[in-house]
Amino acid sequence: MKIYDNPGREQWASLTARNAIESAPVGEVVSSIITRVREEGDSALFDFCRTIDGVSLTSLEVSEAEIESACERVSPELKASIESARDHILRFHEAQRMSPVRVETMPGVCCYQRAVPIDQVGLYVPGGSAPLFSTVLMLAVPAFIAGCRHVVMCTPPDKSGSVNDLILFSARLCGVTHIYKVGGAQAIAAMAYGTESIPKVNKIFGPGNRYVTEAKQQVSRTEVSIDMPAGPSEVLVMADETAYPEFVASDLLSQAEHGPDSQALLVTSSHAFAEQVMNCVEQQKQILSRASIIDQSLANSRIIVLDSREKMTDFANCYAAEHLIVSMENPWDIVSHITSAGSIFVGNYTPESAGDYASGTNHTLPTYGWARSCSGVNLDSFTKKITIQEITPDGLQCLGPIVESMAQAESLTAHRNAIAVRMKTLNSKKC
Amino acid sequence: MKIYDNPGREQWASLTARNAIESAPVGEVVSSIITRVREEGDSALFDFCRTIDGVSLTSLEVSEAEIESACERVSPELKASIESARDHILRFHEAQRMSPVRVETMPGVCCYQRAVPIDQVGLYVPGGSAPLFSTVLMLAVPAFIAGCRHVVMCTPPDKSGSVNDLILFSARLCGVTHIYKVGGAQAIAAMAYGTESIPKVNKIFGPGNRYVTEAKQQVSRTEVSIDMPAGPSEVLVMADETAYPEFVASDLLSQAEHGPDSQALLVTSSHAFAEQVMNCVEQQKQILSRASIIDQSLANSRIIVLDSREKMTDFANCYAAEHLIVSMENPWDIVSHITSAGSIFVGNYTPESAGDYASGTNHTLPTYGWARSCSGVNLDSFTKKITIQEITPDGLQCLGPIVESMAQAESLTAHRNAIAVRMKTLNSKKC
Repeated sequence: MKIYDNPGREQWASLTARNAIESAPVGEVVSSIITRVREEGDSALFDFCRTIDGVSLTSLEVSEAEIESACERVSPELKASIESARDHILRFHEAQRMSPVRVETMPGVCCYQRAVPIDQVGLYVPGGSAPLFSTVLMLAVPAFIAGCRHVVMCTPPDKSGSVNDLILFSARLCGVTHIYKVGGAQAIAAMAYGTESIPKVNKIFGPGNRYVTEAKQQVSRTEVSIDMPAGPSEVLVMADETAYPEFVASDLLSQAEHGPDSQALLVTSSHAFAEQVMNCVEQQKQILSRASIIDQSLANSRIIVLDSREKMTDFANCYAAEHLIVSMENPWDIVSHITSAGSIFVGNYTPESAGDYASGTNHTLPTYGWARSCSGVNLDSFTKKITIQEITPDGLQCLGPIVESMAQAESLTAHRNAIAVRMKTLNSKKC
Repeated sequence: MKIYDNPGREQWASLTARNAIESAPVGEVVSSIITRVREEGDSALFDFCRTIDGVSLTSLEVSEAEIESACERVSPELKASIESARDHILRFHEAQRMSPVRVETMPGVCCYQRAVPIDQVGLYVPGGSAPLFSTVLMLAVPAFIAGCRHVVMCTPPDKSGSVNDLILFSARLCGVTHIYKVGGAQAIAAMAYGTESIPKVNKIFGPGNRYVTEAKQQVSRTEVSIDMPAGPSEVLVMADETAYPEFVASDLLSQAEHGPDSQALLVTSSHAFAEQVMNCVEQQKQILSRASIIDQSLANSRIIVLDSREKMTDFANCYAAEHLIVSMENPWDIVSHITSAGSIFVGNYTPESAGDYASGTNHTLPTYGWARSCSGVNLDSFTKKITIQEITPDGLQCLGPIVESMAQAESLTAHRNAIAVRMKTLNSKKC
């Protein structure tokens, strides 16, 4: 990790830059996968399972028996941990319910806003090097709180045709009953267009590799909504002399192990602290299992030394981190000035990994600078807000002339006419 | 308009289909416009003004003097109408503020959710056949309530290089100070990437033609968020014998005048009522100014007769209309069963045009079936929700083991280590 001492603001654009993501070659591969799934349905999915996942399946849906025996294999201790995490996520997302809005904007004109669940949602849970069962909790818990009626899940099978026990246990715990052994771009296509086995959904959630992300972007142009654009995971740690270098080092490392393209930034008030953190990183790395991934992602990482809390805060806002750790004196004062971040971790005893699993916040968060304009997954993500209005005859007598004059000024005479025919009826009733 | 009497459910897919949107040829034109704006900045914008809008400009930004004189030319009556509409929109969107969420998910583990304004937003207001100043109100009012610090607006100039008086008056009324004379895909590119005159924004809002829509979709892949995918406007009217055929006809016509690709559907319980509506459409059309547009869009429109309230409601949910008018007995009973719609208009005296201008609800709504998964523009659209967590040392003693066991099970040892180094420090302090 390179240390940059008090870089001028003209250098911030390059210091807040993410690793470039290539997408052109992936785009064509993904679009051909989508076309095949649309045209051939299940038969294309079975074929991709053979050629990509290396397994011949006889059924795409995970059976009840498979789920039961998976659950039996999970240790009671781990079950209890997952259940606690589920409870925390449930409690925090339950509290996000909006109150229905009702406003009488003028006498006789009532406007309402209600959150209504999205009927059919699809959850994608990656397989691969680590079985991300925590993602099941993060997506399925709010889906059911929101009231989505149909929740389906796709996840790739392993070489033996099975799905990881912890993924199945977590799905069962959250109430997901329809789970399909399909991964990659083909899973996204199946949920977007529907096949014989897999129902078409209205919105697709979940992380994935470049193929999955590209597929989500392609299907979202015409068919379904998606949770957010996803890029490599990232953390920015703000730390002053009140922070512990060994804690900061552990947070940078936990980000770095996600993947070779992950990015970890440290913004600190002290060069000496930066050096201490680098020493701790070297020490702690020795005992970790994913050292080669960590080495690659640390190559994308930076330490920035800045000489004021204001500059440090500005830099953090400029970067718009997915995860922002604030290990500073008076951290809530900093937090109140943060304008862009996915999720914020306050103080020395709030590591990112707590939020990744079990504090209660969602870990599906905007990366790659999207935190400037996008929220992480939350209860809202599984609903749409519908507005309703009701106008009484007396209300229309007052509002009508306003609408008529505006419609006339926009040259939309049929809009004016819709008021006029009603006013005429009201006036004739009066006589 | 063709009447379909009691079609079977197997026909609903075709009866709820929208007109196909062509996009392939537009895609390449738009991508070359975006590339030129990125590479040449203002000079490309001046050039597009000459070649597309047919006017040579010396400055892209609307001057203070231009805004002042435009405001002087607006009649006091129209000013009063626009101010009333603004007040209603303000009141309804102000009521949409979320309360901050705070939940202690377990002792010592506090999770928060806050809405934070998007810093820089860009509003696109189409010019063309009708000056849509109402769109200025619908976008600028919630932007300022949300607290967005930088609000810029682009709208195409007319042949004399001016912007419509009512658009400038509405912008001034809502507090928009930076207005640029740029239209089409080039305006979207300018706000997405920034030019010498026009600042780069984080999110772009507003309707537009196929070029604008395509440009929004293209820039949203990498640079900025957009409000929603936009397609041709549409209405579905549910009406039984308690409705007035002349009111329903006026609503179908006000939808039809938007553009030749607009769609108006009537779902009714009675064939006789359908016939009456068709007669009223023919009569009312005589006095309207946009008859040729109306004829084209009525060709895309349909009347469906269904023999139960349940079927009518199911059909409306299947269509997922941008605008849904419920002119039925006990309309709120129907409304409570609606699962997909952009905005709902309840009863005989609530025409769509009231919501288009002045009831207080937003008129920027999901079309083309996107109402299944997307909300219309609302206060949320101008904010992102950030989560925050703070864990005390005691809290981490309880939560830590849960996180450690889950991280271990996902094979993420650095995530576990971030807990372990903190627990070690806590335990050594105790001794």
